Amino acid sequence: MLSEFSLIDRFFARRAANLRSSKVTGSALGIGDDCALLAPRPGEMLAISTDMLVEGRHFFADVDPEALGHKALAVNLSDLAAMGAQPQAFTLAFSLPKADEPWLAAFSNGLFALAERHDCELIGGDTTGGPLNLCLTVFGSVPPHAALRRDAARPGDDIWISGTLGDARAGLGVQRGEWTAHASDAATFRHALERPEPRVALGLALRGIAHAALDLSDGLAGDLMHILERSSMRASVDVDAVPRSDALRRLAPEIQRRCTLAGGDDYELCFTAPATARAAVEAAAQKAAVPVTRIGTISALDATTDRPAIAWRNAAGAPLTLTLQGFDHFHAE
Amino acid sequence: MLSEFSLIDRFFARRAANLRSSKVTGSALGIGDDCALLAPRPGEMLAISTDMLVEGRHFFADVDPEALGHKALAVNLSDLAAMGAQPQAFTLAFSLPKADEPWLAAFSNGLFALAERHDCELIGGDTTGGPLNLCLTVFGSVPPHAALRRDAARPGDDIWISGTLGDARAGLGVQRGEWTAHASDAATFRHALERPEPRVALGLALRGIAHAALDLSDGLAGDLMHILERSSMRASVDVDAVPRSDALRRLAPEIQRRCTLAGGDDYELCFTAPATARAAVEAAAQKAAVPVTRIGTISALDATTDRPAIAWRNAAGAPLTLTLQGFDHFHAE
Repeated sequence: MLSEFSLIDRFFARRAANLRSSKVTGSALGIGDDCALLAPRPGEMLAISTDMLVEGRHFFADVDPEALGHKALAVNLSDLAAMGAQPQAFTLAFSLPKADEPWLAAFSNGLFALAERHDCELIGGDTTGGPLNLCLTVFGSVPPHAALRRDAARPGDDIWISGTLGDARAGLGVQRGEWTAHASDAATFRHALERPEPRVALGLALRGIAHAALDLSDGLAGDLMHILERSSMRASVDVDAVPRSDALRRLAPEIQRRCTLAGGDDYELCFTAPATARAAVEAAAQKAAVPVTRIGTISALDATTDRPAIAWRNAAGAPLTLTLQGFDHFHAE
Repeated sequence: MLSEFSLIDRFFARRAANLRSSKVTGSALGIGDDCALLAPRPGEMLAISTDMLVEGRHFFADVDPEALGHKALAVNLSDLAAMGAQPQAFTLAFSLPKADEPWLAAFSNGLFALAERHDCELIGGDTTGGPLNLCLTVFGSVPPHAALRRDAARPGDDIWISGTLGDARAGLGVQRGEWTAHASDAATFRHALERPEPRVALGLALRGIAHAALDLSDGLAGDLMHILERSSMRASVDVDAVPRSDALRRLAPEIQRRCTLAGGDDYELCFTAPATARAAVEAAAQKAAVPVTRIGTISALDATTDRPAIAWRNAAGAPLTLTLQGFDHFHAE
């Protein structure tokens, strides 16, 4: 059994130090003191987000630990991407039932591979015994007026989605036995579930172009409502325009709809931008090498439609009545 | 059963908003967006620390939830105090087996009562179902050159302790049935265990006076070694000088020694300062209204004593051989 300090040192502190020494600008003080010291870039602010991942809820006990290391950081970097922030650093606190060395080695490999790609330094943490639980807090730098907020949607804005939606939820359904898929499609779904790619480059490229943005973690239907509520707007969305993979298209239409609109775990960006910025959005997407798709429009509240809401329609423009609920962590799904 | 969003809103977001509106300077964006935005004071850096608290290890299942709310933030503010940082904000992520409203109300009362005393804003968080686990990350502001680091102890420095040590460990022993105490002493111990007071004012007052500092969470013997290892120094400590409460003095001498030197959960500051600064240290302690006690001295490594170590002695100066181990979260105690 490793002691706390040798465990941190072996799997995390040394690699964190290597990453730090490779950075042009880093923290002034990292792992090993009471606090880390960090500053945003001059004139900018720190964007901060925290996420907790629990076994049995966010991942299965038999998850590939390398994939878990990737995903734990990816879902946090996705929050930075949704603010248009440049990743700088993160802290990692976790409880583990036992100090399982091969598990920790694989977990830290997955974690640091992604951290190194984004030049994101591990600056502190905490480890303790207990049921498996991971808590990461990430720090990015963003000019305050360029931050992509949830409350900034404006009437006439297009609604955009990056990548495709629904594959992660399709993968969960395969794992749960809710539906089946061909082996290669199941592998596609599983990859989406385990290896989400945070859209950091797209978030940065959308600074000054997008109005509102967030990342899709709980499903489009629920997450888009957060933009609408905070912006006091309504949305019209073409459910047939919501981008999906070829693999997902091979599942039944009602499963496709459920997965794309209420699936969760997508970690794609949903953002709004004025119609005049379409070329700029496309250029930003090209620069970030991520496809983007327009799925609807934002409109103002008026006397007859005074509450934020989503009007769903199909490609022909016919209205649809959908009862969809985002993934709510205190509800059994 | 509360949904995640109404739960956050009812117990945390509204009160966080009240606290925020009362602050002269606050975050630019708090709960409800993908990230919070925070900046240190001009010319300063953010001091950042994270701690995870797990049921059965850091607290008992039947803990008073108000006390737990206090302690969860207190142990994190204690890390800021140990850096000489001014608290600014914190994030809170937690997993809960069920959304127990009275429990959450009491927990949030304990949490915010301390947060409001330190003008420390809740800027974000995450809630999920799962075994009870609390992860807080705190943010303070400190001029980088005034930060009290662990690697700054110098030969000839006095070693100082704030408050008294050992009461929290004595309280744990009473709860575990390791020893007994009179009812009023047991209440004193329990208060120390459940309601540690972060020494924020003392940490601020020691800027520019103390050399090295840390907060005592795992026991003096283990924690002082962190200063010695990072500073490449040795220490001589008078075990009889280590301050203790009258209540602790009524337990057996060997229990007193175990609790004061290897107890853990004290959340007092241990710091070093040059002998020429004794009057300044006393003045800082008076300003912060916290007693401080000199317990030993720092010395350089030399050819015959080339490893960081603590030489324990009694009040008469006689050397003692102690086998003490700090509280290590991956060892059964």
